Amino acid sequence: MSSIKLYQSSASPNSRRVRIFIAEKAMDVTSVAVDLGAKEQFSAGYLAINSRSMVPTLVTEDGTSIGEVPAIWRYLEEVHPAHPLLGSTPTEKALITLWERRAELDGFIAVMEAVRNAVPGLKGRALAGPHAYEQIPELVERSKARVVNFYADMEKRLADVPFLAGQHFSAADITALVSVDFATRALSIAIGADQPSLQKWYDTVSARPSMSA
Amino acid sequence: MSSIKLYQSSASPNSRRVRIFIAEKAMDVTSVAVDLGAKEQFSAGYLAINSRSMVPTLVTEDGTSIGEVPAIWRYLEEVHPAHPLLGSTPTEKALITLWERRAELDGFIAVMEAVRNAVPGLKGRALAGPHAYEQIPELVERSKARVVNFYADMEKRLADVPFLAGQHFSAADITALVSVDFATRALSIAIGADQPSLQKWYDTVSARPSMSA
Repeated sequence: MSSIKLYQSSASPNSRRVRIFIAEKAMDVTSVAVDLGAKEQFSAGYLAINSRSMVPTLVTEDGTSIGEVPAIWRYLEEVHPAHPLLGSTPTEKALITLWERRAELDGFIAVMEAVRNAVPGLKGRALAGPHAYEQIPELVERSKARVVNFYADMEKRLADVPFLAGQHFSAADITALVSVDFATRALSIAIGADQPSLQKWYDTVSARPSMSA
Repeated sequence: MSSIKLYQSSASPNSRRVRIFIAEKAMDVTSVAVDLGAKEQFSAGYLAINSRSMVPTLVTEDGTSIGEVPAIWRYLEEVHPAHPLLGSTPTEKALITLWERRAELDGFIAVMEAVRNAVPGLKGRALAGPHAYEQIPELVERSKARVVNFYADMEKRLADVPFLAGQHFSAADITALVSVDFATRALSIAIGADQPSLQKWYDTVSARPSMSA
Protein backbone atom coordinates (compact mmCIF):
# COMPACT_ATOMS: atom_id res chain seq x y z
CA MET A 1 0.00 0.00 0.00
CA SER A 2 1.25 3.43 -0.91
CA SER A 3 1.76 6.01 1.81
CA ILE A 4 0.09 8.64 -0.41
CA LYS A 5 -3.63 8.60 0.35
CA LEU A 6 -6.53 9.90 -1.74
CA TYR A 7 -9.73 10.61 0.17
CA GLN A 8 -12.47 10.43 -2.43
CA SER A 9 -15.99 9.35 -3.28
CA SER A 10 -17.22 7.26 -6.19
CA ALA A 11 -20.20 9.66 -6.47
CA SER A 12 -17.98 12.77 -6.86
CA PRO A 13 -17.05 13.91 -10.38
CA ASN A 14 -14.09 15.86 -8.94
CA SER A 15 -12.85 12.64 -7.35
CA ARG A 16 -13.17 10.95 -10.73
CA ARG A 17 -10.86 13.57 -12.29
CA VAL A 18 -8.13 12.53 -9.85
CA ARG A 19 -8.81 8.78 -10.11
CA ILE A 20 -8.41 8.95 -13.92
CA PHE A 21 -5.20 10.98 -13.57
CA ILE A 22 -3.70 8.40 -11.20
CA ALA A 23 -4.75 5.51 -13.45
CA GLU A 24 -3.20 7.19 -16.52
CA LYS A 25 0.09 7.58 -14.66
CA ALA A 26 -0.15 4.07 -13.19
CA MET A 27 0.68 5.49 -9.77
CA ASP A 28 0.37 3.66 -6.51
CA VAL A 29 -1.97 5.72 -4.30
CA THR A 30 -4.12 4.34 -1.49
CA SER A 31 -7.77 5.19 -1.98
CA VAL A 32 -9.89 5.99 1.10
CA ALA A 33 -13.64 6.19 0.49
CA VAL A 34 -15.57 9.12 2.01
CA ASP A 35 -19.27 8.38 2.33
CA LEU A 36 -21.03 11.54 1.11
CA GLY A 37 -24.44 9.87 1.55
CA ALA A 38 -23.75 9.56 5.27
CA LYS A 39 -22.36 13.15 5.29
CA GLU A 40 -18.96 11.82 6.34
CA GLN A 41 -17.30 14.91 4.78
CA PHE A 42 -18.71 16.94 7.70
CA SER A 43 -17.38 14.55 10.37
CA ALA A 44 -14.64 15.70 12.78
CA GLY A 45 -12.29 13.10 11.32
CA TYR A 46 -12.63 14.41 7.79
CA LEU A 47 -12.61 18.07 8.84
CA ALA A 48 -9.14 17.45 10.29
CA ILE A 49 -8.04 16.46 6.77
CA ASN A 50 -10.02 19.07 4.83
CA SER A 51 -11.50 21.95 6.82
CA ARG A 52 -13.73 22.83 3.86
CA SER A 53 -15.48 19.42 3.86
CA MET A 54 -14.69 18.88 0.21
CA VAL A 55 -13.59 15.76 -1.67
CA PRO A 56 -11.13 14.80 -3.01
CA THR A 57 -8.17 15.45 -0.71
CA LEU A 58 -4.69 14.03 -1.20
CA VAL A 59 -2.55 13.39 1.87
CA THR A 60 1.15 13.19 0.99
CA GLU A 61 3.83 10.99 2.55
CA ASP A 62 4.75 13.72 5.04
CA GLY A 63 1.10 14.23 6.02
CA THR A 64 0.38 17.43 4.06
CA SER A 65 -3.27 17.72 2.99
CA ILE A 66 -3.88 18.99 -0.53
CA GLY A 67 -7.38 19.84 -1.71
CA GLU A 68 -8.58 21.08 -5.14
CA VAL A 69 -8.09 18.91 -8.22
CA PRO A 70 -5.49 21.02 -10.11
CA ALA A 71 -3.37 21.26 -6.94
CA ILE A 72 -3.53 17.49 -6.42
CA TRP A 73 -2.62 16.94 -10.07
CA ARG A 74 0.32 19.31 -9.81
CA TYR A 75 1.69 17.39 -6.82
CA LEU A 76 1.28 14.00 -8.50
CA GLU A 77 2.92 15.18 -11.75
CA GLU A 78 5.87 16.65 -9.84
CA VAL A 79 6.61 13.53 -7.81
CA HIS A 80 5.91 11.19 -10.75
CA PRO A 81 6.82 12.97 -14.01
CA ALA A 82 6.48 9.84 -16.20
CA HIS A 83 3.45 9.83 -18.53
CA PRO A 84 3.08 13.62 -18.30
CA LEU A 85 -0.51 14.87 -18.32
CA LEU A 86 0.29 18.54 -17.64
CA GLY A 87 2.74 18.92 -20.54
CA SER A 88 6.47 18.62 -21.24
CA THR A 89 7.58 21.93 -22.77
CA PRO A 90 6.79 25.45 -21.44
CA THR A 91 4.32 26.01 -24.31
CA GLU A 92 2.63 22.63 -23.79
CA LYS A 93 2.34 23.25 -20.04
CA ALA A 94 0.73 26.63 -20.70
CA LEU A 95 -1.68 25.34 -23.36
CA ILE A 96 -2.79 22.42 -21.19
CA THR A 97 -3.35 24.83 -18.29
CA LEU A 98 -5.38 27.02 -20.67
CA TRP A 99 -7.58 24.30 -22.16
CA GLU A 100 -8.06 22.43 -18.90
CA ARG A 101 -9.15 25.69 -17.31
CA ARG A 102 -11.66 26.41 -20.07
CA ALA A 103 -13.08 22.90 -19.76
CA GLU A 104 -13.46 23.46 -16.04
CA LEU A 105 -14.83 27.03 -16.03
CA ASP A 106 -17.10 26.64 -19.07
CA GLY A 107 -17.98 22.96 -18.68
CA PHE A 108 -17.47 21.39 -15.30
CA ILE A 109 -18.39 24.39 -13.15
CA ALA A 110 -21.43 25.20 -15.29
CA VAL A 111 -22.77 21.64 -14.89
CA MET A 112 -22.12 21.79 -11.15
CA GLU A 113 -23.88 25.16 -10.90
CA ALA A 114 -26.95 23.87 -12.75
CA VAL A 115 -27.13 20.87 -10.42
CA ARG A 116 -26.46 22.60 -7.10
CA ASN A 117 -28.94 25.41 -7.72
CA ALA A 118 -31.71 22.93 -8.60
CA VAL A 119 -31.46 19.84 -6.37
CA PRO A 120 -33.86 20.05 -3.38
CA GLY A 121 -31.33 18.29 -1.12
CA LEU A 122 -28.87 21.16 -1.66
CA LYS A 123 -31.17 23.98 -0.54
CA GLY A 124 -28.99 26.51 1.30
CA ARG A 125 -25.86 24.73 -0.05
CA ALA A 126 -25.74 26.16 -3.56
CA LEU A 127 -21.95 26.34 -3.45
CA ALA A 128 -19.67 23.63 -2.11
CA GLY A 129 -17.44 24.61 0.81
CA PRO A 130 -17.80 25.92 4.33
CA HIS A 131 -20.36 28.69 3.70
CA ALA A 132 -24.13 28.51 3.22
CA TYR A 133 -25.62 30.10 0.10
CA GLU A 134 -29.21 29.98 -1.10
CA GLN A 135 -30.03 28.50 -4.49
CA ILE A 136 -30.84 30.88 -7.36
CA PRO A 137 -33.30 29.08 -9.67
CA GLU A 138 -32.63 31.53 -12.54
CA LEU A 139 -29.04 30.33 -12.58
CA VAL A 140 -30.09 26.82 -13.58
CA GLU A 141 -31.18 27.82 -17.09
CA ARG A 142 -28.18 30.09 -17.64
CA SER A 143 -25.85 27.30 -16.57
CA LYS A 144 -27.51 24.84 -18.95
CA ALA A 145 -27.10 27.36 -21.79
CA ARG A 146 -23.41 27.57 -20.88
CA VAL A 147 -23.04 23.79 -21.10
CA VAL A 148 -24.66 23.81 -24.56
CA ASN A 149 -22.20 26.53 -25.66
CA PHE A 150 -19.34 24.53 -24.15
CA TYR A 151 -20.23 21.57 -26.36
CA ALA A 152 -20.38 23.86 -29.42
CA ASP A 153 -16.97 25.37 -28.58
CA MET A 154 -15.52 21.86 -28.11
CA GLU A 155 -16.92 20.76 -31.50
CA LYS A 156 -15.16 23.70 -33.17
CA ARG A 157 -11.86 23.03 -31.38
CA LEU A 158 -11.90 19.26 -31.97
CA ALA A 159 -12.50 19.73 -35.70
CA ASP A 160 -8.91 21.09 -35.78
CA VAL A 161 -7.03 18.90 -33.29
CA PRO A 162 -7.50 15.34 -31.96
CA PHE A 163 -7.28 16.34 -28.27
CA LEU A 164 -8.40 19.45 -26.46
CA ALA A 165 -4.91 20.89 -25.84
CA GLY A 166 -3.56 19.75 -29.24
CA GLN A 167 -1.87 16.56 -30.44
CA HIS A 168 -1.70 14.65 -27.16
CA PHE A 169 -4.08 13.38 -24.52
CA SER A 170 -3.80 15.55 -21.40
CA ALA A 171 -5.47 16.64 -18.18
CA ALA A 172 -7.64 18.95 -20.31
CA ASP A 173 -9.29 15.89 -21.84
CA ILE A 174 -9.90 14.41 -18.39
CA THR A 175 -11.82 17.48 -17.21
CA ALA A 176 -13.75 17.73 -20.48
CA LEU A 177 -14.68 14.03 -20.52
CA VAL A 178 -15.84 14.07 -16.90
CA SER A 179 -17.85 17.24 -17.63
CA VAL A 180 -19.61 15.65 -20.64
CA ASP A 181 -20.45 12.51 -18.66
CA PHE A 182 -21.67 14.62 -15.73
CA ALA A 183 -23.83 16.81 -18.02
CA THR A 184 -25.25 13.80 -19.83
CA ARG A 185 -26.18 12.04 -16.59
CA ALA A 186 -27.28 14.98 -14.41
CA LEU A 187 -28.72 17.40 -16.97
CA SER A 188 -29.58 15.08 -19.90
CA ILE A 189 -27.41 17.25 -22.17
CA ALA A 190 -26.01 14.73 -24.63
CA ILE A 191 -23.58 15.23 -27.53
CA GLY A 192 -25.56 16.34 -30.61
CA ALA A 193 -25.87 14.39 -33.86
CA ASP A 194 -24.41 17.53 -35.48
CA GLN A 195 -21.24 17.32 -33.37
CA PRO A 196 -19.19 14.58 -35.06
CA SER A 197 -15.79 15.86 -33.92
CA LEU A 198 -16.88 16.01 -30.30
CA GLN A 199 -18.42 12.52 -30.63
CA LYS A 200 -15.25 11.08 -32.19
CA TRP A 201 -13.11 12.60 -29.43
CA TYR A 202 -15.54 11.29 -26.80
CA ASP A 203 -15.42 7.76 -28.21
CA THR A 204 -11.61 7.78 -28.37
CA VAL A 205 -11.09 9.19 -24.89
CA SER A 206 -13.77 7.19 -23.12
CA ALA A 207 -12.25 3.96 -24.51
CA ARG A 208 -9.09 4.52 -22.44
CA PRO A 209 -8.88 1.98 -19.58
CA SER A 210 -8.33 4.82 -17.06
CA MET A 211 -11.86 6.13 -17.60
CA SER A 212 -13.43 3.41 -15.48
CA ALA A 213 -11.14 4.21 -12.53
CA MET B 1 12.42 45.18 -26.69
CA SER B 2 11.51 41.63 -25.80
CA SER B 3 9.97 39.39 -28.42
CA ILE B 4 7.46 38.12 -25.84
CA LYS B 5 4.39 40.38 -25.99
CA LEU B 6 1.67 40.91 -23.41
CA TYR B 7 -1.59 42.32 -24.74
CA GLN B 8 -3.25 43.93 -21.76
CA SER B 9 -5.30 46.82 -20.41
CA SER B 10 -4.59 49.08 -17.45
CA ALA B 11 -8.33 48.85 -16.59
CA SER B 12 -8.32 45.02 -16.40
CA PRO B 13 -7.69 43.37 -13.00
CA ASN B 14 -6.71 40.15 -14.79
CA SER B 15 -4.08 42.10 -16.72
CA ARG B 16 -2.80 43.48 -13.42
CA ARG B 17 -2.28 39.93 -12.12
CA VAL B 18 0.13 39.31 -15.01
CA ARG B 19 1.84 42.73 -14.84
CA ILE B 20 2.65 42.16 -11.15
CA PHE B 21 3.96 38.66 -11.88
CA ILE B 22 6.29 39.99 -14.60
CA ALA B 23 7.50 42.84 -12.36
CA GLU B 24 8.24 40.41 -9.50
CA LYS B 25 10.32 38.26 -11.84
CA ALA B 26 11.95 41.32 -13.42
CA MET B 27 11.25 39.85 -16.86
CA ASP B 28 11.56 41.69 -20.13
CA VAL B 29 8.14 41.50 -21.82
CA THR B 30 6.81 44.02 -24.33
CA SER B 31 3.48 45.44 -23.23
CA VAL B 32 0.84 46.19 -25.88
CA ALA B 33 -2.17 48.20 -24.67
CA VAL B 34 -5.66 47.02 -25.71
CA ASP B 35 -8.24 49.81 -25.48
CA LEU B 36 -11.29 48.21 -23.83
CA GLY B 37 -13.09 51.59 -23.81
CA ALA B 38 -12.96 51.61 -27.62
CA LYS B 39 -13.94 47.90 -27.66
CA GLU B 40 -10.62 47.04 -29.31
CA GLN B 41 -10.87 43.50 -27.87
CA PHE B 42 -13.63 42.81 -30.41
CA SER B 43 -11.60 44.11 -33.39
CA ALA B 44 -10.48 41.71 -36.13
CA GLY B 45 -6.86 42.37 -35.21
CA TYR B 46 -7.34 41.33 -31.60
CA LEU B 47 -9.63 38.40 -32.45
CA ALA B 48 -6.74 36.94 -34.47
CA ILE B 49 -4.73 36.93 -31.22
CA ASN B 50 -7.52 35.88 -28.85
CA SER B 51 -10.70 34.50 -30.43
CA ARG B 52 -12.53 34.94 -27.11
CA SER B 53 -11.91 38.72 -27.01
CA MET B 54 -10.38 38.50 -23.57
CA VAL B 55 -7.39 40.29 -22.06
CA PRO B 56 -4.67 39.57 -21.15
CA THR B 57 -3.05 37.44 -23.87
CA LEU B 58 0.63 36.53 -24.01
CA VAL B 59 2.22 35.93 -27.41
CA THR B 60 5.41 33.89 -27.14
CA GLU B 61 8.59 34.19 -29.22
CA ASP B 62 7.33 31.57 -31.68
CA GLY B 63 3.97 33.34 -32.02
CA THR B 64 1.84 31.07 -29.82
CA SER B 65 -1.07 32.92 -28.18
CA ILE B 66 -1.74 32.06 -24.54
CA GLY B 67 -4.82 33.37 -22.78
CA GLU B 68 -5.96 32.90 -19.15
CA VAL B 69 -3.82 34.21 -16.30
CA PRO B 70 -2.69 30.88 -14.73
CA ALA B 71 -1.65 29.61 -18.18
CA ILE B 72 0.36 32.78 -18.87
CA TRP B 73 1.96 32.50 -15.44
CA ARG B 74 2.89 28.89 -16.04
CA TYR B 75 4.64 29.79 -19.30
CA LEU B 76 6.55 32.68 -17.75
CA GLU B 77 7.67 30.61 -14.75
CA GLU B 78 8.86 27.78 -17.02
CA VAL B 79 10.96 29.99 -19.30
CA HIS B 80 12.23 32.13 -16.41
CA PRO B 81 12.43 29.99 -13.25
CA ALA B 82 14.34 32.61 -11.21
CA HIS B 83 12.30 34.27 -8.44
CA PRO B 84 9.75 31.43 -8.41
CA LEU B 85 6.16 32.53 -7.76
CA LEU B 86 4.55 29.12 -8.35
CA GLY B 87 6.74 27.22 -5.86
CA SER B 88 9.99 25.25 -5.79
CA THR B 89 9.20 21.84 -4.28
CA PRO B 90 6.29 19.54 -5.28
CA THR B 91 4.45 20.37 -2.02
CA GLU B 92 5.00 24.11 -2.45
CA LYS B 93 3.81 23.98 -6.07
CA ALA B 94 0.66 22.16 -4.99
CA LEU B 95 -0.09 24.47 -2.05
CA ILE B 96 0.40 27.59 -4.16
CA THR B 97 -1.92 26.12 -6.81
CA LEU B 98 -4.43 25.40 -4.03
CA TRP B 99 -4.36 28.82 -2.36
CA GLU B 100 -4.16 30.79 -5.59
CA ARG B 101 -7.19 28.87 -6.81
CA ARG B 102 -9.18 29.61 -3.66
CA ALA B 103 -8.30 33.30 -3.92
CA GLU B 104 -9.52 33.25 -7.51
CA LEU B 105 -12.70 31.17 -7.11
CA ASP B 106 -13.81 32.65 -3.77
CA GLY B 107 -12.41 36.15 -4.20
CA PHE B 108 -11.62 37.31 -7.70
CA ILE B 109 -14.44 35.52 -9.52
CA ALA B 110 -17.00 36.54 -6.88
CA VAL B 111 -16.04 40.21 -7.25
CA MET B 112 -16.21 39.92 -11.04
CA GLU B 113 -19.61 38.22 -10.82
CA ALA B 114 -21.02 40.96 -8.58
CA VAL B 115 -19.78 43.61 -11.01
CA ARG B 116 -20.78 41.99 -14.30
CA ASN B 117 -24.30 41.13 -13.14
CA ALA B 118 -24.91 44.71 -11.97
CA VAL B 119 -23.25 47.18 -14.36
CA PRO B 120 -25.76 48.58 -16.92
CA GLY B 121 -23.09 48.64 -19.64
CA LEU B 122 -22.71 44.85 -19.36
CA LYS B 123 -26.37 43.96 -19.94
CA GLY B 124 -26.41 40.73 -21.97
CA ARG B 125 -22.67 40.28 -21.24
CA ALA B 126 -22.85 38.87 -17.71
CA LEU B 127 -19.96 36.51 -18.41
CA ALA B 128 -16.75 37.45 -20.25
CA GLY B 129 -16.02 35.51 -23.41
CA PRO B 130 -17.63 34.84 -26.77
CA HIS B 131 -21.19 34.06 -25.60
CA ALA B 132 -24.01 36.38 -24.54
CA TYR B 133 -25.63 35.80 -21.13
CA GLU B 134 -28.23 37.93 -19.39
CA GLN B 135 -27.49 39.44 -15.99
CA ILE B 136 -29.07 37.83 -12.90
CA PRO B 137 -29.60 40.62 -10.34
CA GLU B 138 -30.04 38.09 -7.49
CA LEU B 139 -26.48 36.95 -8.08
CA VAL B 140 -25.11 40.37 -7.11
CA GLU B 141 -26.00 40.01 -3.43
CA ARG B 142 -24.87 36.39 -3.25
CA SER B 143 -21.54 37.34 -4.81
CA LYS B 144 -21.05 40.18 -2.32
CA ALA B 145 -21.74 37.77 0.54
CA ARG B 146 -19.07 35.48 -0.93
CA VAL B 147 -16.54 38.32 -0.96
CA VAL B 148 -17.29 39.07 2.70
CA ASN B 149 -16.76 35.38 3.53
CA PHE B 150 -13.54 35.40 1.49
CA TYR B 151 -12.17 38.22 3.66
CA ALA B 152 -13.14 36.29 6.81
CA ASP B 153 -11.45 33.12 5.51
CA MET B 154 -8.31 35.14 4.66
CA GLU B 155 -8.26 36.67 8.15
CA LYS B 156 -8.31 33.18 9.66
CA ARG B 157 -5.57 31.89 7.36
CA LEU B 158 -3.30 34.93 7.75
CA ALA B 159 -3.46 34.71 11.54
CA ASP B 160 -1.39 31.51 11.12
CA VAL B 161 0.99 32.30 8.25
CA PRO B 162 2.49 35.52 6.82
CA PHE B 163 1.50 34.78 3.22
CA LEU B 164 -1.50 33.01 1.76
CA ALA B 165 0.34 29.84 0.67
CA GLY B 166 2.62 29.79 3.76
CA GLN B 167 6.01 31.32 4.51
CA HIS B 168 6.76 32.95 1.15
CA PHE B 169 5.18 35.51 -1.15
CA SER B 170 3.64 33.73 -4.16
CA ALA B 171 1.15 34.00 -7.02
CA ALA B 172 -1.58 33.28 -4.45
CA ASP B 173 -0.86 36.65 -2.83
CA ILE B 174 -1.02 38.38 -6.22
CA THR B 175 -4.54 37.08 -6.92
CA ALA B 176 -5.69 37.83 -3.37
CA LEU B 177 -4.29 41.38 -3.38
CA VAL B 178 -5.79 42.20 -6.77
CA SER B 179 -9.14 40.77 -5.55
CA VAL B 180 -9.12 42.92 -2.40
CA ASP B 181 -8.27 46.07 -4.38
CA PHE B 182 -10.95 45.21 -6.96
CA ALA B 183 -13.59 44.58 -4.25
CA THR B 184 -12.66 47.77 -2.41
CA ARG B 185 -12.88 49.89 -5.54
CA ALA B 186 -15.82 48.27 -7.36
CA LEU B 187 -17.98 47.02 -4.48
CA SER B 188 -16.84 49.24 -1.58
CA ILE B 189 -16.01 46.12 0.44
CA ALA B 190 -13.03 47.20 2.51
CA ILE B 191 -10.95 45.25 5.01
CA GLY B 192 -12.68 45.35 8.41
CA ALA B 193 -11.28 46.93 11.57
CA ASP B 194 -11.71 43.46 13.10
CA GLN B 195 -9.38 41.88 10.50
CA PRO B 196 -5.87 42.81 11.71
CA SER B 197 -4.10 39.85 10.10
CA LEU B 198 -5.62 40.56 6.72
CA GLN B 199 -4.75 44.26 7.10
CA LYS B 200 -1.14 43.50 8.06
CA TRP B 201 -0.77 41.16 5.09
CA TYR B 202 -2.36 43.76 2.81
CA ASP B 203 0.03 46.48 4.00
CA THR B 204 3.07 44.23 3.56
CA VAL B 205 2.11 42.96 0.11
CA SER B 206 0.87 46.25 -1.31
CA ALA B 207 4.18 47.90 -0.35
CA ARG B 208 6.04 45.71 -2.86
CA PRO B 209 7.24 47.79 -5.84
CA SER B 210 5.62 45.30 -8.27
CA MET B 211 2.13 46.27 -7.12
CA SER B 212 2.15 49.51 -9.08
CA ALA B 213 3.02 47.67 -12.32
